[in-house]
Amino acid sequence: MQIERDLESAEAVADAIRHLEVRGAPLIGIAAAMGLVAGTRELRGAAREAYLARVATATPGDGSAIWERLHAEATAIWEEDRAMCRRIGEHGLPLVPDGANVLTHCNAGALATGGIGTALAPIYLAHEQGRKVHVYVDETRPVLQGARLTAWELKHAGIPCTLIPDSAAGVLMRQAKVDVVIVGVDRICANGDFANKIGTYGLAVLARHHGVPFYAAGPWSSVDPSLADGEVIPIEQRAADEVTTIAGRPIAPPGVPALNYAFDVTPARYVTAYVTDRGLVQPPFTADPPS
Amino acid sequence: MQIERDLESAEAVADAIRHLEVRGAPLIGIAAAMGLVAGTRELRGAAREAYLARVATATPGDGSAIWERLHAEATAIWEEDRAMCRRIGEHGLPLVPDGANVLTHCNAGALATGGIGTALAPIYLAHEQGRKVHVYVDETRPVLQGARLTAWELKHAGIPCTLIPDSAAGVLMRQAKVDVVIVGVDRICANGDFANKIGTYGLAVLARHHGVPFYAAGPWSSVDPSLADGEVIPIEQRAADEVTTIAGRPIAPPGVPALNYAFDVTPARYVTAYVTDRGLVQPPFTADPPS
Repeated sequence: MQIERDLESAEAVADAIRHLEVRGAPLIGIAAAMGLVAGTRELRGAAREAYLARVATATPGDGSAIWERLHAEATAIWEEDRAMCRRIGEHGLPLVPDGANVLTHCNAGALATGGIGTALAPIYLAHEQGRKVHVYVDETRPVLQGARLTAWELKHAGIPCTLIPDSAAGVLMRQAKVDVVIVGVDRICANGDFANKIGTYGLAVLARHHGVPFYAAGPWSSVDPSLADGEVIPIEQRAADEVTTIAGRPIAPPGVPALNYAFDVTPARYVTAYVTDRGLVQPPFTADPPS
Repeated sequence: MQIERDLESAEAVADAIRHLEVRGAPLIGIAAAMGLVAGTRELRGAAREAYLARVATATPGDGSAIWERLHAEATAIWEEDRAMCRRIGEHGLPLVPDGANVLTHCNAGALATGGIGTALAPIYLAHEQGRKVHVYVDETRPVLQGARLTAWELKHAGIPCTLIPDSAAGVLMRQAKVDVVIVGVDRICANGDFANKIGTYGLAVLARHHGVPFYAAGPWSSVDPSLADGEVIPIEQRAADEVTTIAGRPIAPPGVPALNYAFDVTPARYVTAYVTDRGLVQPPFTADPPS
């Protein structure tokens, strides 16, 4: 079942981001820009000072002109993202040869971006080119982005996939059923350590142990050279009831404490390469993108 | 919420085993024996031949005598299991020192046996002796035995525990928050390879990678010396809807294929030691138990 919702205020967009209804780093950026546009529509008739009291920009003109400028900017961000996804896909295409079995975690696909995704972009392009591809989709507990989103969009695109419990990745690698692991990224440090959905690190260890190439895919803008390494990233904890309930129903006895790390950090040494819109790259990363 | 059900026929017991309402290798054995007793209660008045047509035994006497013998035997199996669990706990006790953080998978506790469990037995005894113990409980998708059973029984016993998504084990080990992993076993091969709940193998690889001791706990009777190694164990697949639904509610789009391995096989080289009622033992294993 698909449900479409129009988010017509900045508050509605902010709420949707907070509750993971809009998720995926690129899509959050796009939605935030669009949310700012939606949220200031009423100020179009305002004087320049009144408008800027809410949205500080360097745009000349009155409220209407500034709003139009913001609208154009948000649309440009979206279009830029679509092009970025496609470039990630092109750079990652050689990693997904005909017959490849890819394993992915969480959702770094079309439902997380304005385009064809990041981790899934090479898969979409390989499929577009007629290559046979099959994807093992980690269900990605606790929020089940793999089961709910990745499986949905791959099925929608006609790309064969198999949903698995997260804990089945190890035995599949041991059985040599996984040719390559491609995951998304939340943030990449200067030394290449990167944050991504909880479970990514364990998957990286398993891939290393079994000699399976492990790729982290994301826009170059995910690189934050101000972060020296992963040690400086505090791991956010989300509400315990995401673990103790599923779709609102309890799966554990009342009062059992649960740990709900939102993400983990994977050290650079586990990563075969970073698949970015600037190519397959290797750390150390600086503010200057590779040419 | 606890619900007690009386299983008063062999069919009811068989159904309960089939649907994982009774699970855990030792408890299945006890229940099967009790089920045979329950299922032949009506035959107590039967002649010897009529009774033996259903239950072939070497017991002399009529239906009533044979039934009493079976009843005593089933009760003895239960009592033997209780004693066996306690011996496993005693042999494993040194692995759980004061302050230990133990990680376990699935349920190999009191709810899986007639006694205090296998993997959890050393934890129960350590707690009984006043040692501070804390247990990280893998929720154990897809059937959630960790969330539903292990968390329940540890809480019930007053042993501090924290429920985690299966995929969080890796980062916890990296953060040095896990001192020891103890899991149960379904079956142990002559060379020490063993079958256990899906996810056990990945956990063993993570433990090895992080230098965390990894113990497999079970009765000596889990050893099947007729199995040379894990390669000869075919991995059973259970129904896909255990993965695509939780408590009857879909968590994935309709028609998405899912892979549901019931268990995986962990090679002996990942196992620090086997915690059995005959002591901490090392392969190779033969039909003769260690003295």
